[in-house]
Amino acid sequence: MKHILRMSDLHDEDIYQLFARADQAKENQLHAKQSGFVANLFFEPSTRTKMSFEVAEKKLGLETVDFSSESSSVQKGESLYDTVRTIEALGASAVVIRHEQENFYDELIPGVSIPVINGGDGKGEHPTQSLLDLYTIFQEFGRFEGLRVVIAGDIKHSRVARSNAYMLDRLGAFVTFTGPESWQDESLAFPYLPIDEAVEQCDVLMMLRIQEERHQDRVNNQQGYLQQFGLTVEREKRMKHSSIILHPAPVNRGVEIASELVECSRSRIFQQMTNGVYIRMAALEHVLRGGTENEKTTETSTHLSRS
Amino acid sequence: MKHILRMSDLHDEDIYQLFARADQAKENQLHAKQSGFVANLFFEPSTRTKMSFEVAEKKLGLETVDFSSESSSVQKGESLYDTVRTIEALGASAVVIRHEQENFYDELIPGVSIPVINGGDGKGEHPTQSLLDLYTIFQEFGRFEGLRVVIAGDIKHSRVARSNAYMLDRLGAFVTFTGPESWQDESLAFPYLPIDEAVEQCDVLMMLRIQEERHQDRVNNQQGYLQQFGLTVEREKRMKHSSIILHPAPVNRGVEIASELVECSRSRIFQQMTNGVYIRMAALEHVLRGGTENEKTTETSTHLSRS
Amino acid sequence: MKHILRMSDLHDEDIYQLFARADQAKENQLHAKQSGFVANLFFEPSTRTKMSFEVAEKKLGLETVDFSSESSSVQKGESLYDTVRTIEALGASAVVIRHEQENFYDELIPGVSIPVINGGDGKGEHPTQSLLDLYTIFQEFGRFEGLRVVIAGDIKHSRVARSNAYMLDRLGAFVTFTGPESWQDESLAFPYLPIDEAVEQCDVLMMLRIQEERHQDRVNNQQGYLQQFGLTVEREKRMKHSSIILHPAPVNRGVEIASELVECSRSRIFQQMTNGVYIRMAALEHVLRGGTENEKTTETSTHLSRS
Repeated sequence: MKHILRMSDLHDEDIYQLFARADQAKENQLHAKQSGFVANLFFEPSTRTKMSFEVAEKKLGLETVDFSSESSSVQKGESLYDTVRTIEALGASAVVIRHEQENFYDELIPGVSIPVINGGDGKGEHPTQSLLDLYTIFQEFGRFEGLRVVIAGDIKHSRVARSNAYMLDRLGAFVTFTGPESWQDESLAFPYLPIDEAVEQCDVLMMLRIQEERHQDRVNNQQGYLQQFGLTVEREKRMKHSSIILHPAPVNRGVEIASELVECSRSRIFQQMTNGVYIRMAALEHVLRGGTENEKTTETSTHLSRS
Repeated sequence: MKHILRMSDLHDEDIYQLFARADQAKENQLHAKQSGFVANLFFEPSTRTKMSFEVAEKKLGLETVDFSSESSSVQKGESLYDTVRTIEALGASAVVIRHEQENFYDELIPGVSIPVINGGDGKGEHPTQSLLDLYTIFQEFGRFEGLRVVIAGDIKHSRVARSNAYMLDRLGAFVTFTGPESWQDESLAFPYLPIDEAVEQCDVLMMLRIQEERHQDRVNNQQGYLQQFGLTVEREKRMKHSSIILHPAPVNRGVEIASELVECSRSRIFQQMTNGVYIRMAALEHVLRGGTENEKTTETSTHLSRS
Repeated sequence: MKHILRMSDLHDEDIYQLFARADQAKENQLHAKQSGFVANLFFEPSTRTKMSFEVAEKKLGLETVDFSSESSSVQKGESLYDTVRTIEALGASAVVIRHEQENFYDELIPGVSIPVINGGDGKGEHPTQSLLDLYTIFQEFGRFEGLRVVIAGDIKHSRVARSNAYMLDRLGAFVTFTGPESWQDESLAFPYLPIDEAVEQCDVLMMLRIQEERHQDRVNNQQGYLQQFGLTVEREKRMKHSSIILHPAPVNRGVEIASELVECSRSRIFQQMTNGVYIRMAALEHVLRGGTENEKTTETSTHLSRS
């Protein structure tokens, strides 16, 4: 794979190889083979994903070039394709794109020759988030086979629920959903459990963020949500000793999860962010190598100006 | 020349020397003599020019410092002069400025001691765009003498039409204009041709962007514009075998030029962007050397922190 | 001190040690001991402070990661604490924060483990501005003992007047205020003088910026302000030969100070900005060393990607 667009494009061995690279990144042993710069195009608000990519790029020894959609030619009506071709012409080695349009990359792939990493396509996917979720689980348990993973919350509007469910299933985990009936997604063939049963059974409780900015009825979402569907202090006490909590953040404290649990001992929420940098380093390094696994990673990097 | 403000400040030999430096840049052989940082002050929206300068600075081995006019002291009523003096006091080696006010640099030059590069002054000039246009022509033909260059479109509102016309004329090319009568500029003494004649005669078709954001009657501009004044597929077929198409981008596809021609074999539109990085590297390197040609370019650069 | 939050946290010896480091910075001899990146979180508009920190970080050999509150999770309702914990999880070595809420750091310090530098907390303090003011005075006179310092203008709404007054007093200077009665701060026990007396007596005239964006009656503030309370050309002539003028900038030319005095020979206004970079390098280097003075500063730095 030359690009990273959809989780379903990744073979199992790709995933485990990315994990191995992420481990190297964690040990400060992953660097870009060549100097260059990556352009980060974020057409939707994002703190953590954009900063995470930026840190990943710099730790790989790459430069970054900032693209601000507010003060850009996009205001002049330029198409995404022309914007990306421009970035390519400016000399970028790769481009990371978050865009509100699902499958935005379909119009890019035929004409663009640099690697594209999907940083979130509308209600589509967010593959590096999926990868960091999987990596955090793998780091904890060393396997997926037989693990009970519950995905909790707004299944329907999430851009990671669907792909995480399929990938975890493919990798051998037992996946269940929990959440309000109105947010169930009938197109996904996984069983639903009430939250009270779910917390007791699971090894991993993967919470989803309520995308409040995508819902009209904000107040209704919050009132009573925690008690009915969220992780309360009482429910957390009934979780298995070894089970862990994931959440992609930003957390709506007191909505999906009781505020005091955000940094409890079984929470891996901030660990996920740390892992996000390693996974994005692995993903970038992978596509910059052309997506082949034949060559060994070089441990040296040179400065952009010396290329 | 210490600054790069207006094309008319440049002697012919300056221009050819900048081209030679741009050639070096293309070969990764142009680096800043000393470390330091450049501040990019863009008071008007711009993707490609700002990113192009940023890439150029980094490839020279310089740091960049981002200036965002939206969240700045400019909102507090600070003058451009005080802003630039501040940037100088912070230690910038040079400053690139795009500003809506024509000749904005007049108030700066007496009091500011670091080099200023004009990144576009209102309806005034955009010298690095002119230089990259000229460089792209020179790269193609190796000369200007005797070349027939047609500048097409919104002559009156363009900030490159005027200076490109004068420079090309001075360098030996035959310059003609084409475009709607209402956008003709009577102060410029170049002949106008109908587009159908122009395409057949020219070696270079230099299209201008319709600055839609500067016109009130957007719809009228577009309706029928391509058929009457733009480059249709039919017109492109009647161009000479060796002739090329330039456009500063972003392109209004289907307005100035048929969408399918944007990346046709005679289009140099994306090549212009690539050349823009080289020309800006040459321009920056030139002013940072103090604008003298007596010293040899050094091929080494040191990191900012080691200066 | 591990963080830099309030001037009152600093002992006299801390201050003189920071000055010594700033002197080293001026001589290009101050570098971060380790590679890494600093995140700059500015929730309020700022040109010079943000750029100054950015330059300081790069000159120390550190990377910077840009945080834009406009396009961030803060829009999604994320708390400052969660934002800073995220930045920490992403691997930042330190964080610089400007925030509209006074004492914003109180909620951070218990849970955050990386150093926090206060870049301005509402109407609270702005310690690196205070430090650069003090440093500029010390650079000029080599002492504080016995110096007559007049702080002029909008005492009540300034976030440096209070802490500068206390610190200067503590360090041995004689502090007086001058300014309109409505802007006097009765909680501060320093005498007020009319501006005409003040200018004749002082060694240092420390002007404050009129925070026009915080006042409703803009016009009233300006009309006649210069004549009644500001530094006119006539008043400047009656200042002592050796006395200097400070102003934190951006200057309201013609309001606090006559425009022609902004760059007069006794003005240190742009020198303050230059010193701001050195002081911020000293401050960052200090907190990154863990705030201890036991270890010697190393002169070497390594690139982020080689850590």
